[in-house]
Amino acid sequence: VRLDAEPSTDGLTTYAFTAGDVPGVAWFPPDPDVPLVLVGHGGGRHARHPAVLDRARSLVAAGFAVAAIDAPGHGGRPRVPGIEDAAAALRRLIAAGKPVGEAVTALNGLVAAAAVPEWRRVLDGLLRHVGPGTPVGYVGLSMAAAIGIPLLAAEPRIRAAVLGLLGDEAVDAAARVRVPVEFVMQWHDAQVPRHRALALFDAIGSADKTLHANPGGHGDVPAFQHAASIMFLRRHLVHRTRRAAQ
Amino acid sequence: VRLDAEPSTDGLTTYAFTAGDVPGVAWFPPDPDVPLVLVGHGGGRHARHPAVLDRARSLVAAGFAVAAIDAPGHGGRPRVPGIEDAAAALRRLIAAGKPVGEAVTALNGLVAAAAVPEWRRVLDGLLRHVGPGTPVGYVGLSMAAAIGIPLLAAEPRIRAAVLGLLGDEAVDAAARVRVPVEFVMQWHDAQVPRHRALALFDAIGSADKTLHANPGGHGDVPAFQHAASIMFLRRHLVHRTRRAAQ
Repeated sequence: VRLDAEPSTDGLTTYAFTAGDVPGVAWFPPDPDVPLVLVGHGGGRHARHPAVLDRARSLVAAGFAVAAIDAPGHGGRPRVPGIEDAAAALRRLIAAGKPVGEAVTALNGLVAAAAVPEWRRVLDGLLRHVGPGTPVGYVGLSMAAAIGIPLLAAEPRIRAAVLGLLGDEAVDAAARVRVPVEFVMQWHDAQVPRHRALALFDAIGSADKTLHANPGGHGDVPAFQHAASIMFLRRHLVHRTRRAAQ
Repeated sequence: VRLDAEPSTDGLTTYAFTAGDVPGVAWFPPDPDVPLVLVGHGGGRHARHPAVLDRARSLVAAGFAVAAIDAPGHGGRPRVPGIEDAAAALRRLIAAGKPVGEAVTALNGLVAAAAVPEWRRVLDGLLRHVGPGTPVGYVGLSMAAAIGIPLLAAEPRIRAAVLGLLGDEAVDAAARVRVPVEFVMQWHDAQVPRHRALALFDAIGSADKTLHANPGGHGDVPAFQHAASIMFLRRHLVHRTRRAAQ
Protein backbone atom coordinates (compact mmCIF):
# COMPACT_ATOMS: atom_id res chain seq x y z
CA VAL A 1 0.00 0.00 0.00
CA ARG A 2 1.07 3.59 -0.61
CA LEU A 3 0.27 6.00 2.23
CA ASP A 4 -0.72 9.56 1.30
CA ALA A 5 -0.52 12.13 4.09
CA GLU A 6 -3.51 14.45 4.34
CA PRO A 7 -3.30 17.99 5.75
CA SER A 8 -3.73 17.83 9.53
CA THR A 9 -5.52 20.38 11.70
CA ASP A 10 -5.03 18.74 15.09
CA GLY A 11 -1.46 17.43 14.98
CA LEU A 12 -2.46 13.88 14.07
CA THR A 13 -1.69 13.17 10.41
CA THR A 14 -4.11 10.85 8.60
CA TYR A 15 -2.57 8.68 5.88
CA ALA A 16 -4.97 7.52 3.18
CA PHE A 17 -4.30 4.26 1.37
CA THR A 18 -5.97 1.89 -1.06
CA ALA A 19 -5.37 -1.86 -0.98
CA GLY A 20 -6.77 -3.28 -4.20
CA ASP A 21 -10.16 -1.55 -4.29
CA VAL A 22 -10.42 -1.16 -0.48
CA PRO A 23 -9.95 2.40 0.83
CA GLY A 24 -8.39 2.83 4.23
CA VAL A 25 -6.71 5.27 6.59
CA ALA A 26 -3.77 4.90 8.96
CA TRP A 27 -2.29 6.94 11.80
CA PHE A 28 1.14 6.66 13.42
CA PRO A 29 2.76 7.81 16.66
CA PRO A 30 6.23 9.43 16.51
CA ASP A 31 7.98 6.15 17.41
CA PRO A 32 7.95 3.93 14.29
CA ASP A 33 8.73 0.69 16.16
CA VAL A 34 5.30 0.04 17.70
CA PRO A 35 2.50 -2.50 17.36
CA LEU A 36 -0.24 -2.02 14.76
CA VAL A 37 -3.93 -2.10 15.73
CA LEU A 38 -6.57 -2.72 13.07
CA VAL A 39 -9.82 -0.95 13.95
CA GLY A 40 -13.12 -2.11 12.49
CA HIS A 41 -16.25 0.06 12.32
CA GLY A 42 -19.87 -0.74 13.15
CA GLY A 43 -22.70 -1.29 10.67
CA GLY A 44 -23.54 1.77 8.54
CA ARG A 45 -20.33 3.54 9.58
CA HIS A 46 -16.98 3.84 7.80
CA ALA A 47 -13.22 4.18 8.38
CA ARG A 48 -13.42 7.94 9.01
CA HIS A 49 -16.47 7.83 11.31
CA PRO A 50 -15.97 9.94 14.49
CA ALA A 51 -16.11 6.78 16.65
CA VAL A 52 -13.19 5.31 14.66
CA LEU A 53 -11.27 8.60 14.81
CA ASP A 54 -11.75 8.83 18.60
CA ARG A 55 -10.53 5.25 19.05
CA ALA A 56 -7.58 5.87 16.68
CA ARG A 57 -6.58 9.08 18.47
CA SER A 58 -6.46 7.38 21.89
CA LEU A 59 -4.60 4.35 20.48
CA VAL A 60 -1.98 6.56 18.81
CA ALA A 61 -1.61 8.54 22.05
CA ALA A 62 -1.00 5.21 23.82
CA GLY A 63 1.76 4.36 21.34
CA PHE A 64 0.09 2.26 18.66
CA ALA A 65 -0.02 2.58 14.88
CA VAL A 66 -3.65 2.28 13.74
CA ALA A 67 -5.35 1.35 10.48
CA ALA A 68 -9.02 1.27 9.48
CA ILE A 69 -10.76 0.33 6.22
CA ASP A 70 -14.27 0.81 4.86
CA ALA A 71 -16.16 -2.48 5.18
CA PRO A 72 -17.76 -3.94 2.03
CA GLY A 73 -20.70 -1.78 0.93
CA HIS A 74 -19.80 0.90 3.48
CA GLY A 75 -18.30 4.42 3.34
CA GLY A 76 -17.12 5.48 -0.09
CA ARG A 77 -17.29 1.95 -1.51
CA PRO A 78 -19.78 0.77 -4.16
CA ARG A 79 -23.01 -0.60 -2.77
CA VAL A 80 -23.35 -4.42 -2.83
CA PRO A 81 -26.88 -5.58 -3.71
CA GLY A 82 -27.09 -8.41 -1.14
CA ILE A 83 -25.76 -6.19 1.65
CA GLU A 84 -28.08 -3.35 0.59
CA ASP A 85 -31.10 -5.66 0.76
CA ALA A 86 -30.11 -6.97 4.20
CA ALA A 87 -29.50 -3.43 5.49
CA ALA A 88 -32.88 -2.27 4.14
CA ALA A 89 -34.60 -5.22 5.83
CA LEU A 90 -32.88 -4.26 9.10
CA ARG A 91 -33.94 -0.61 8.76
CA ARG A 92 -37.56 -1.67 8.19
CA LEU A 93 -37.53 -3.74 11.39
CA ILE A 94 -35.98 -0.88 13.39
CA ALA A 95 -38.62 1.55 12.00
CA ALA A 96 -41.37 -0.91 12.94
CA GLY A 97 -39.92 -1.41 16.43
CA LYS A 98 -39.57 -5.16 15.80
CA PRO A 99 -36.78 -7.50 17.00
CA VAL A 100 -33.68 -7.09 14.85
CA GLY A 101 -31.50 -10.01 15.98
CA GLU A 102 -31.94 -12.24 12.92
CA ALA A 103 -31.61 -9.34 10.46
CA VAL A 104 -28.40 -8.14 12.15
CA THR A 105 -27.01 -11.69 11.96
CA ALA A 106 -27.85 -11.94 8.25
CA LEU A 107 -26.27 -8.57 7.45
CA ASN A 108 -23.18 -9.32 9.58
CA GLY A 109 -22.68 -12.67 7.84
CA LEU A 110 -22.72 -11.12 4.37
CA VAL A 111 -20.32 -8.34 5.31
CA ALA A 112 -17.94 -10.62 7.21
CA ALA A 113 -17.64 -13.14 4.36
CA ALA A 114 -16.43 -10.37 2.04
CA ALA A 115 -14.41 -8.45 4.66
CA VAL A 116 -12.14 -11.22 5.98
CA PRO A 117 -10.07 -11.71 2.77
CA GLU A 118 -9.92 -7.92 2.36
CA TRP A 119 -8.47 -7.36 5.84
CA ARG A 120 -5.89 -10.08 5.17
CA ARG A 121 -4.75 -8.37 1.94
CA VAL A 122 -4.69 -4.98 3.72
CA LEU A 123 -2.57 -6.54 6.45
CA ASP A 124 -0.13 -7.88 3.83
CA GLY A 125 0.32 -4.34 2.53
CA LEU A 126 0.54 -2.66 5.93
CA LEU A 127 3.11 -5.14 7.24
CA ARG A 128 5.32 -4.43 4.22
CA HIS A 129 5.15 -0.81 5.35
CA VAL A 130 5.62 -1.17 9.16
CA GLY A 131 7.79 -4.29 9.13
CA PRO A 132 6.76 -7.95 8.91
CA GLY A 133 7.47 -8.70 12.59
CA THR A 134 5.21 -5.93 13.90
CA PRO A 135 2.77 -7.25 16.54
CA VAL A 136 -0.79 -6.79 15.31
CA GLY A 137 -4.03 -6.38 17.27
CA TYR A 138 -7.65 -5.96 16.22
CA VAL A 139 -10.44 -3.87 17.76
CA GLY A 140 -13.99 -4.38 16.57
CA LEU A 141 -17.40 -4.20 18.22
CA SER A 142 -20.80 -5.09 16.77
CA MET A 143 -20.48 -5.68 12.97
CA ALA A 144 -16.71 -5.31 13.34
CA ALA A 145 -16.72 -8.19 15.84
CA ALA A 146 -18.71 -10.30 13.37
CA ILE A 147 -15.87 -9.61 10.92
CA GLY A 148 -13.15 -9.94 13.56
CA ILE A 149 -14.04 -13.41 14.80
CA PRO A 150 -13.66 -15.25 11.46
CA LEU A 151 -10.68 -12.98 10.72
CA LEU A 152 -8.95 -14.09 13.94
CA ALA A 153 -9.82 -17.71 13.20
CA ALA A 154 -8.15 -17.39 9.76
CA GLU A 155 -5.29 -14.95 10.37
CA PRO A 156 -2.38 -16.05 12.59
CA ARG A 157 -0.64 -12.66 12.42
CA ILE A 158 -3.23 -11.02 14.72
CA ARG A 159 -2.06 -11.65 18.29
CA ALA A 160 -4.81 -10.09 20.45
CA ALA A 161 -8.26 -8.62 19.94
CA VAL A 162 -10.93 -6.49 21.58
CA LEU A 163 -14.33 -7.77 20.44
CA GLY A 164 -17.91 -7.42 21.60
CA LEU A 165 -21.49 -6.18 21.19
CA LEU A 166 -22.25 -9.42 19.37
CA GLY A 167 -24.27 -12.55 20.05
CA ASP A 168 -23.68 -16.23 19.55
CA GLU A 169 -24.20 -16.16 15.78
CA ALA A 170 -20.43 -16.50 15.53
CA VAL A 171 -19.78 -19.43 17.89
CA ASP A 172 -18.23 -21.81 15.35
CA ALA A 173 -15.53 -19.37 14.28
CA ALA A 174 -15.20 -18.15 17.90
CA ALA A 175 -14.25 -21.67 19.02
CA ARG A 176 -11.28 -21.55 16.63
CA VAL A 177 -9.91 -18.29 18.08
CA ARG A 178 -6.81 -18.89 20.19
CA VAL A 179 -5.33 -15.45 20.88
CA PRO A 180 -6.13 -13.30 23.94
CA VAL A 181 -9.52 -11.60 23.63
CA GLU A 182 -11.16 -8.85 25.67
CA PHE A 183 -14.90 -9.24 25.11
CA VAL A 184 -17.06 -6.16 25.72
CA MET A 185 -20.80 -6.39 26.23
CA GLN A 186 -23.57 -4.01 27.25
CA TRP A 187 -25.87 -5.32 29.98
CA HIS A 188 -29.04 -3.81 28.50
CA ASP A 189 -28.25 -4.21 24.79
CA ALA A 190 -31.55 -4.32 22.90
CA GLN A 191 -29.81 -5.61 19.74
CA VAL A 192 -27.86 -8.41 21.45
CA PRO A 193 -29.74 -10.36 24.15
CA ARG A 194 -27.62 -10.79 27.27
CA HIS A 195 -27.57 -14.59 27.17
CA ARG A 196 -26.41 -14.56 23.54
CA ALA A 197 -23.46 -12.27 24.27
CA LEU A 198 -22.51 -14.44 27.27
CA ALA A 199 -22.78 -17.54 25.04
CA LEU A 200 -20.40 -16.02 22.51
CA PHE A 201 -17.86 -15.15 25.25
CA ASP A 202 -18.22 -18.72 26.51
CA ALA A 203 -17.57 -20.10 23.01
CA ILE A 204 -14.34 -18.19 22.37
CA GLY A 205 -11.59 -20.82 22.23
CA SER A 206 -8.84 -18.69 23.77
CA ALA A 207 -7.42 -19.74 27.14
CA ASP A 208 -6.77 -16.05 27.83
CA LYS A 209 -10.07 -14.21 27.46
CA THR A 210 -11.75 -11.63 29.67
CA LEU A 211 -15.31 -10.32 29.74
CA HIS A 212 -16.17 -6.70 30.52
CA ALA A 213 -19.87 -5.88 30.90
CA ASN A 214 -21.36 -2.46 31.60
CA PRO A 215 -24.90 -1.15 32.07
CA GLY A 216 -26.67 0.53 29.15
CA GLY A 217 -27.58 -0.15 25.55
CA HIS A 218 -25.68 -1.07 22.40
CA GLY A 219 -24.29 2.43 21.91
CA ASP A 220 -23.48 3.19 25.54
CA VAL A 221 -20.01 1.60 25.96
CA PRO A 222 -18.39 3.87 28.59
CA ALA A 223 -15.20 5.81 27.93
CA PHE A 224 -13.37 3.95 30.72
CA GLN A 225 -13.95 0.72 28.76
CA HIS A 226 -11.95 2.14 25.86
CA ALA A 227 -9.15 2.94 28.33
CA ALA A 228 -9.33 -0.63 29.68
CA SER A 229 -9.08 -1.98 26.12
CA ILE A 230 -5.90 0.04 25.57
CA MET A 231 -4.48 -1.49 28.76
CA PHE A 232 -5.38 -4.95 27.40
CA LEU A 233 -3.68 -4.27 24.05
CA ARG A 234 -0.58 -2.88 25.78
CA ARG A 235 -0.39 -5.99 27.96
CA HIS A 236 -0.49 -8.34 24.97
CA LEU A 237 1.26 -6.37 22.22
CA VAL A 238 3.65 -3.86 23.79
CA HIS A 239 4.91 -5.68 26.85
CA ARG A 240 5.49 -8.88 24.84
CA THR A 241 7.46 -6.96 22.24
CA ARG A 242 9.71 -5.54 24.93
CA ARG A 243 10.19 -8.88 26.63
CA ALA A 244 11.04 -10.49 23.30
CA ALA A 245 13.60 -7.76 22.66
CA GLN A 246 15.42 -8.30 25.95
CA VAL B 1 -7.27 3.52 66.98
CA ARG B 2 -3.59 3.62 67.89
CA LEU B 3 -1.22 2.46 65.15
CA ASP B 4 1.89 0.56 66.22
CA ALA B 5 4.65 0.29 63.62
CA GLU B 6 6.21 -3.15 63.27
CA PRO B 7 9.79 -3.73 62.13
CA SER B 8 9.85 -3.85 58.32
CA THR B 9 12.06 -6.08 56.19
CA ASP B 10 10.88 -4.98 52.74
CA GLY B 11 10.45 -1.20 53.07
CA LEU B 12 6.71 -1.36 53.64
CA THR B 13 5.89 -0.69 57.30
CA THR B 14 2.95 -2.57 58.77
CA TYR B 15 0.98 -0.73 61.46
CA ALA B 16 -0.96 -2.94 63.86
CA PHE B 17 -4.09 -1.60 65.52
CA THR B 18 -6.99 -2.78 67.64
CA ALA B 19 -10.46 -1.27 67.38
CA GLY B 20 -12.44 -2.51 70.37
CA ASP B 21 -11.59 -6.21 70.26
CA VAL B 22 -10.95 -6.29 66.49
CA PRO B 23 -7.30 -6.64 65.46
CA GLY B 24 -6.22 -5.02 62.22
CA VAL B 25 -3.26 -3.84 60.18
CA ALA B 26 -2.71 -0.76 58.05
CA TRP B 27 -0.15 0.36 55.47
CA PHE B 28 0.55 3.85 54.14
CA PRO B 29 2.31 5.37 51.12
CA PRO B 30 4.70 8.29 51.67
CA ASP B 31 2.03 10.87 50.70
CA PRO B 32 -0.36 11.16 53.66
CA ASP B 33 -3.16 12.85 51.67
CA VAL B 34 -4.49 9.80 49.82
CA PRO B 35 -7.65 7.68 49.75
CA LEU B 36 -8.07 4.76 52.14
CA VAL B 37 -8.95 1.28 50.86
CA LEU B 38 -10.42 -1.30 53.23
CA VAL B 39 -9.41 -4.82 52.20
CA GLY B 40 -11.46 -7.82 53.28
CA HIS B 41 -10.14 -11.39 53.36
CA GLY B 42 -11.72 -14.63 52.16
CA GLY B 43 -13.13 -17.40 54.34
CA GLY B 44 -10.56 -19.10 56.60
CA ARG B 45 -7.99 -16.38 55.96
CA HIS B 46 -7.03 -13.32 58.03
CA ALA B 47 -5.75 -9.75 57.78
CA ARG B 48 -2.11 -10.83 57.38
CA HIS B 49 -2.76 -13.59 54.82
CA PRO B 50 -0.34 -13.43 51.85
CA ALA B 51 -3.24 -12.64 49.48
CA VAL B 52 -4.12 -9.58 51.61
CA LEU B 53 -0.46 -8.54 51.83
CA ASP B 54 -0.06 -8.79 48.04
CA ARG B 55 -3.17 -6.71 47.48
CA ALA B 56 -2.06 -4.17 50.10
CA ARG B 57 1.43 -3.88 48.62
CA SER B 58 0.11 -3.11 45.12
CA LEU B 59 -2.48 -0.66 46.47
CA VAL B 60 0.15 1.21 48.51
CA ALA B 61 2.42 1.30 45.45
CA ALA B 62 -0.50 2.84 43.52
CA GLY B 63 -0.86 5.55 46.16
CA PHE B 64 -3.52 4.27 48.56
CA ALA B 65 -3.56 3.84 52.32
CA VAL B 66 -4.81 0.33 53.14
CA ALA B 67 -6.39 -1.31 56.18
CA ALA B 68 -7.44 -4.89 56.85
CA ILE B 69 -9.05 -6.56 59.87
CA ASP B 70 -9.54 -10.14 60.98
CA ALA B 71 -13.15 -11.15 60.29
CA PRO B 72 -15.22 -12.55 63.20
CA GLY B 73 -13.94 -15.99 64.18
CA HIS B 74 -10.90 -15.63 61.90
CA GLY B 75 -7.17 -15.05 62.38
CA GLY B 76 -6.15 -14.39 65.97
CA ARG B 77 -9.71 -13.77 67.14
CA PRO B 78 -11.68 -16.06 69.48
CA ARG B 79 -13.64 -18.75 67.73
CA VAL B 80 -17.41 -18.16 67.54
CA PRO B 81 -19.47 -21.35 68.05
CA GLY B 82 -22.05 -20.66 65.28
CA ILE B 83 -19.34 -19.76 62.76
CA GLU B 84 -17.25 -22.78 63.80
CA ASP B 85 -20.20 -25.10 63.23
CA ALA B 86 -20.94 -23.59 59.81
CA ALA B 87 -17.25 -23.78 58.81
CA ALA B 88 -17.07 -27.43 59.95
CA ALA B 89 -20.19 -28.25 57.92
CA LEU B 90 -18.58 -26.61 54.88
CA ARG B 91 -15.33 -28.57 55.39
CA ARG B 92 -17.28 -31.84 55.57
CA LEU B 93 -19.01 -31.08 52.25
CA ILE B 94 -15.69 -30.16 50.59
CA ALA B 95 -14.10 -33.38 51.90
CA ALA B 96 -17.07 -35.38 50.56
CA GLY B 97 -16.90 -33.63 47.18
CA LYS B 98 -20.49 -32.41 47.60
CA PRO B 99 -21.99 -29.06 46.47
CA VAL B 100 -21.02 -26.31 48.90
CA GLY B 101 -23.22 -23.39 47.78
CA GLU B 102 -25.74 -23.48 50.63
CA ALA B 103 -23.07 -24.04 53.28
CA VAL B 104 -20.99 -21.13 51.97
CA THR B 105 -24.10 -18.91 52.03
CA ALA B 106 -24.86 -19.91 55.63
CA LEU B 107 -21.29 -19.25 56.78
CA ASN B 108 -21.09 -15.96 54.89
CA GLY B 109 -24.35 -14.76 56.43
CA LEU B 110 -23.17 -15.42 59.99
CA VAL B 111 -19.81 -13.74 59.44
CA ALA B 112 -21.29 -10.74 57.59
CA ALA B 113 -23.88 -10.01 60.31
CA ALA B 114 -21.10 -9.68 62.88
CA ALA B 115 -18.56 -8.01 60.58
CA VAL B 116 -20.58 -5.05 59.29
CA PRO B 117 -20.80 -3.14 62.59
CA GLU B 118 -17.13 -3.96 63.26
CA TRP B 119 -15.96 -2.47 59.95
CA ARG B 120 -18.02 0.66 60.68
CA ARG B 121 -16.35 1.12 64.09
CA VAL B 122 -12.93 0.46 62.56
CA LEU B 123 -13.69 3.08 59.90
CA ASP B 124 -14.61 5.59 62.64
CA GLY B 125 -11.20 5.07 64.20
CA LEU B 126 -9.23 5.08 60.94
CA LEU B 127 -10.91 8.28 59.69
CA ARG B 128 -9.92 10.02 62.92
CA HIS B 129 -6.37 9.06 62.00
CA VAL B 130 -6.29 9.83 58.24
CA GLY B 131 -8.79 12.72 58.24
CA PRO B 132 -12.59 12.61 58.14
CA GLY B 133 -12.85 13.72 54.49
CA THR B 134 -10.60 10.94 53.19
CA PRO B 135 -12.24 9.08 50.27
CA VAL B 136 -12.77 5.43 51.22
CA GLY B 137 -12.99 2.34 49.04
CA TYR B 138 -13.55 -1.34 49.80
CA VAL B 139 -12.07 -4.44 48.17
CA GLY B 140 -13.52 -7.82 49.01
CA LEU B 141 -14.03 -11.05 47.11
CA SER B 142 -15.82 -14.22 48.20
CA MET B 143 -16.64 -14.02 51.97
CA ALA B 144 -15.34 -10.44 51.95
CA ALA B 145 -17.92 -9.58 49.27
CA ALA B 146 -20.64 -11.15 51.43
CA ILE B 147 -19.49 -8.73 54.14
CA GLY B 148 -18.95 -5.84 51.75
CA ILE B 149 -22.41 -5.77 50.19
CA PRO B 150 -24.36 -5.17 53.42
CA LEU B 151 -21.52 -2.89 54.57
CA LEU B 152 -21.90 -0.74 51.44
CA ALA B 153 -25.68 -0.74 51.86
CA ALA B 154 -25.25 0.59 55.44
CA GLU B 155 -22.14 2.77 55.26
CA PRO B 156 -22.33 5.99 53.21
CA ARG B 157 -18.64 6.85 53.74
CA ILE B 158 -17.49 4.09 51.34
CA ARG B 159 -17.54 5.60 47.85
CA ALA B 160 -16.50 2.72 45.57
CA ALA B 161 -15.95 -1.03 45.87
CA VAL B 162 -14.41 -4.01 44.16
CA LEU B 163 -16.55 -7.06 44.93
CA GLY B 164 -16.99 -10.54 43.49
CA LEU B 165 -16.68 -14.33 43.68
CA LEU B 166 -20.15 -14.37 45.23
CA GLY B 167 -23.61 -15.50 44.16
CA ASP B 168 -27.06 -14.06 44.48
CA GLU B 169 -27.43 -14.84 48.19
CA ALA B 170 -26.87 -11.12 48.73
CA VAL B 171 -29.36 -9.62 46.24
CA ASP B 172 -31.49 -7.72 48.76
CA ALA B 173 -28.57 -5.76 50.20
CA ALA B 174 -27.01 -5.50 46.72
CA ALA B 175 -30.09 -3.66 45.45
CA ARG B 176 -29.46 -0.97 48.08
CA VAL B 177 -25.84 -0.36 46.97
CA ARG B 178 -25.52 2.93 45.09
CA VAL B 179 -21.77 3.55 44.75
CA PRO B 180 -19.63 2.46 41.78
CA VAL B 181 -18.83 -1.26 41.91
CA GLU B 182 -16.38 -3.38 39.94
CA PHE B 183 -17.72 -6.94 40.15
CA VAL B 184 -15.21 -9.74 39.56
CA MET B 185 -16.28 -13.28 38.72
CA GLN B 186 -14.56 -16.47 37.63
CA TRP B 187 -16.16 -18.18 34.63
CA HIS B 188 -15.58 -21.72 35.93
CA ASP B 189 -16.10 -21.11 39.67
CA ALA B 190 -17.16 -24.40 41.27
CA GLN B 191 -18.26 -22.60 44.46
CA VAL B 192 -20.35 -19.93 42.76
CA PRO B 193 -22.46 -21.07 39.78
CA ARG B 194 -22.11 -18.71 36.83
CA HIS B 195 -25.78 -17.73 36.69
CA ARG B 196 -25.78 -16.85 40.39
CA ALA B 197 -22.78 -14.51 40.06
CA LEU B 198 -24.39 -12.87 37.02
CA ALA B 199 -27.64 -12.51 39.00
CA LEU B 200 -25.80 -10.75 41.82
CA PHE B 201 -24.14 -8.35 39.39
CA ASP B 202 -27.56 -7.71 37.86
CA ALA B 203 -29.04 -6.98 41.31
CA ILE B 204 -26.47 -4.36 42.33
CA GLY B 205 -28.36 -1.07 42.53
CA SER B 206 -25.49 1.17 41.37
CA ALA B 207 -25.91 3.01 38.07
CA ASP B 208 -22.12 2.77 37.68
CA LYS B 209 -21.16 -0.89 37.87
CA THR B 210 -18.89 -3.00 35.71
CA LEU B 211 -18.46 -6.76 35.43
CA HIS B 212 -15.11 -8.45 34.82
CA ALA B 213 -15.17 -12.20 34.19
CA ASN B 214 -12.18 -14.44 33.59
CA PRO B 215 -11.72 -18.14 32.91
CA GLY B 216 -10.78 -20.45 35.76
CA GLY B 217 -11.95 -21.41 39.22
CA HIS B 218 -12.65 -19.57 42.46
CA GLY B 219 -8.97 -19.11 43.29
CA ASP B 220 -7.75 -18.26 39.79
CA VAL B 221 -8.39 -14.50 39.57
CA PRO B 222 -5.60 -13.33 37.25
CA ALA B 223 -3.01 -10.75 38.30
CA PHE B 224 -4.14 -8.36 35.56
CA GLN B 225 -7.56 -8.26 37.23
CA HIS B 226 -5.95 -6.85 40.38
CA ALA B 227 -4.30 -4.18 38.22
CA ALA B 228 -7.68 -3.39 36.63
CA SER B 229 -9.21 -3.04 40.10
CA ILE B 230 -6.55 -0.51 41.04
CA MET B 231 -7.41 1.46 37.88
CA PHE B 232 -11.08 1.34 38.94
CA LEU B 233 -10.29 2.60 42.45
CA ARG B 234 -8.07 5.36 41.09
CA ARG B 235 -10.85 6.46 38.74
CA HIS B 236 -13.39 6.75 41.55
CA LEU B 237 -11.30 7.75 44.56
CA VAL B 238 -8.16 9.56 43.37
CA HIS B 239 -9.36 11.42 40.31
CA ARG B 240 -12.48 12.65 42.14
CA THR B 241 -10.37 13.90 45.02
CA ARG B 242 -8.25 15.91 42.61
CA ARG B 243 -11.22 17.32 40.77
CA ALA B 244 -12.87 18.28 44.04
CA ALA B 245 -9.66 20.08 45.09
CA GLN B 246 -9.49 22.19 41.92
